[in-house]
Amino acid sequence: VLPPTSRKLTRYEAKRHNRRLVLRTIYQAGEISRADIARATGLTRTTSSSAVADLMEEGLVEELGQGPSAGGKPPTILHVAQDARHVAGVDLGGLTLRGAVFDLRGSVCHQATVPLNTGDGNHVLDLVLDLLDRLVELADRPLLGIGVGLPGLIDVSQGIVHQAVNLGWRQLPLMDLLAQRYHLPIGLVNDSQAAALAEYTFANPDRVRDLAVILIKRGISAGLIFNGLLHHGTSRSGASEIGHVRVVEDGELCACGHRGCLETVASQRAVLHMAQDIYDSHPQSSLRQFAAASTSVDMDAVLRALEAGDPLLASMVEGVGRYLGIAAANLVSVANVPLVVLAGSVARFGNPLVEVVGREMRDRSLASLAEQVQVRVSELGDDIVMKGAAAAMLASELGVV
Amino acid sequence: VLPPTSRKLTRYEAKRHNRRLVLRTIYQAGEISRADIARATGLTRTTSSSAVADLMEEGLVEELGQGPSAGGKPPTILHVAQDARHVAGVDLGGLTLRGAVFDLRGSVCHQATVPLNTGDGNHVLDLVLDLLDRLVELADRPLLGIGVGLPGLIDVSQGIVHQAVNLGWRQLPLMDLLAQRYHLPIGLVNDSQAAALAEYTFANPDRVRDLAVILIKRGISAGLIFNGLLHHGTSRSGASEIGHVRVVEDGELCACGHRGCLETVASQRAVLHMAQDIYDSHPQSSLRQFAAASTSVDMDAVLRALEAGDPLLASMVEGVGRYLGIAAANLVSVANVPLVVLAGSVARFGNPLVEVVGREMRDRSLASLAEQVQVRVSELGDDIVMKGAAAAMLASELGVV
Repeated sequence: VLPPTSRKLTRYEAKRHNRRLVLRTIYQAGEISRADIARATGLTRTTSSSAVADLMEEGLVEELGQGPSAGGKPPTILHVAQDARHVAGVDLGGLTLRGAVFDLRGSVCHQATVPLNTGDGNHVLDLVLDLLDRLVELADRPLLGIGVGLPGLIDVSQGIVHQAVNLGWRQLPLMDLLAQRYHLPIGLVNDSQAAALAEYTFANPDRVRDLAVILIKRGISAGLIFNGLLHHGTSRSGASEIGHVRVVEDGELCACGHRGCLETVASQRAVLHMAQDIYDSHPQSSLRQFAAASTSVDMDAVLRALEAGDPLLASMVEGVGRYLGIAAANLVSVANVPLVVLAGSVARFGNPLVEVVGREMRDRSLASLAEQVQVRVSELGDDIVMKGAAAAMLASELGVV
Repeated sequence: VLPPTSRKLTRYEAKRHNRRLVLRTIYQAGEISRADIARATGLTRTTSSSAVADLMEEGLVEELGQGPSAGGKPPTILHVAQDARHVAGVDLGGLTLRGAVFDLRGSVCHQATVPLNTGDGNHVLDLVLDLLDRLVELADRPLLGIGVGLPGLIDVSQGIVHQAVNLGWRQLPLMDLLAQRYHLPIGLVNDSQAAALAEYTFANPDRVRDLAVILIKRGISAGLIFNGLLHHGTSRSGASEIGHVRVVEDGELCACGHRGCLETVASQRAVLHMAQDIYDSHPQSSLRQFAAASTSVDMDAVLRALEAGDPLLASMVEGVGRYLGIAAANLVSVANVPLVVLAGSVARFGNPLVEVVGREMRDRSLASLAEQVQVRVSELGDDIVMKGAAAAMLASELGVV
């Protein structure tokens, strides 16, 4: 016998559905009248006004004042009370565990960080709990929930981390653990998928419905949004594992066991290795001005030397961009998205990188397709993953995203 | 103001929705009782039985007899009357225009072909109308509609062929043209998307919900099914244009203007070129047995020589498989699908091809991901595109797919 593919809603479910629909309509419109809500949702005036009344009672929606009259009585304008609830989001993908408390529009209200100074899974878990304790303490509005973004293989529905190498975790039932401690809704999200959700929700003025975000940090993977929804593949990671596609024949050995993976030539690690080589073998490189020693070549030093016009670093960025352009060409040719966003530490190279990636992408795929694709760097910076983890909770708890 | 994202159904729409839901439930179950339909759909017994009565009156559903009793009265078993309606599907992607009349399970009832002996768009349109006239004439049940599969850039919703090079068409409002002539529902589908739909609908015993079909004929492109639905990208073709991803640096010039595209080394044209070279320069090749002259080297001759164990052809297939393996690695890494199906004339190479494609795919992508991916050749053969075009009409007109 089949699973139910669709079924009638109970009265309670219908009411909840209408409330979410009305809230999403107000959230996405910004400011809107009761009459326009009814028009946009297709609900009757009575049903939509009753949902508005519920939402106002919960404090989620407020009256903003009178709008312009269209002849008769001027309409009352509603908006979402941005500060009615808070939501916590954390990013466990870096050498610093980062988290923040956000309002309903994704603005940071409070922040906290904890250095990741161990590779021992149990100890890492203590650090994460420490970070979350502080965030929960900092929140001064009711918390909708906690979103956790991390690199690795995650079972989103069960809330289990199958494997997260950088955190030393295997088969960790993180969702249950956190739910028991905080008595709040918890969501786990792969970090590149969180990045895609953040870009879609908070940095999408054109309301593009399909996009890809390539997250380039210690690893490289991509998150895809199709028709406004996160694409979950059937593998356990969920994300698009483009970091392990071969881009160099007989290339360097990757941690995954294969040779010539994209991560071996375009990840932050690869970039820092190349920069270190430049530091060591080219005394004239401007890197010497910005890094005190070979061992202290970091992304900040590399960026400053690049901005100072160092030709060796410029050609390094050109090389990285060419490899990322292969990935962009694959993404566009397979997924047929109109927008590719670069995010993560390596995306800090900005326009010089974007230009090469775009050129290579157009060169390596059908012209009529690639010409219509925009490539850009995310403006969300280091906050992108924790913002996306928060957006996942706004989606699951309020349905506004 | 927003477009309505969801709205209440009118009574008529609700009734139609229920009827489609019940029909799909019976179609997918094969044989099912009224009680199990209610259970599977979540509809009340009254609502679902009333939908069944409507469907029986339309002749779409029949009673099959009594099922085993679960204690009380033995239940009456229902099934879809496979022959209650016909649907036409055509494939305009080859040197022969092919079409068939199918029953509701995709079995061929009648067939027709017309040789594509011209490149002039107006003349080609006459040939297509000739083919369709014959199919409409052949159908001996009420026709649900006509599905048209073709390679090229199509606006599916408007039914306009923006560009179909092999048919000499540009900006052709084909859907309106055919609707006016036949007074039937018409659907246009990109041919690789049709292939994906056919595979999903008619050759999917495991009920896989996500898959990719690589269609390798004169061109190469892929159709993707995500969660049971065709993925339409935002470009006008809809399909995944993997045939124009560069797989050979500084390779041969492609018709698209770029160099080293997959189509230059793995399409039917590329295969026949290579085989012709083998014929010309290797008198000992078994191709000489199966092709009367260099100019008559066709896919049949190549296949026979391959089966006869010709080592030159075996290594040619190995090379083609390696290039297709690059495409498969990209597909799997980006789209995260558990199944890649090869279809079209080049897929006739069968297992020798599948083995190389699978090996290369696993070699060029994350092992833990690729290990779980199955690669196989479609069993639908040359019928795959016209079957998929028919499936598109079953989906749009009956909602059963």
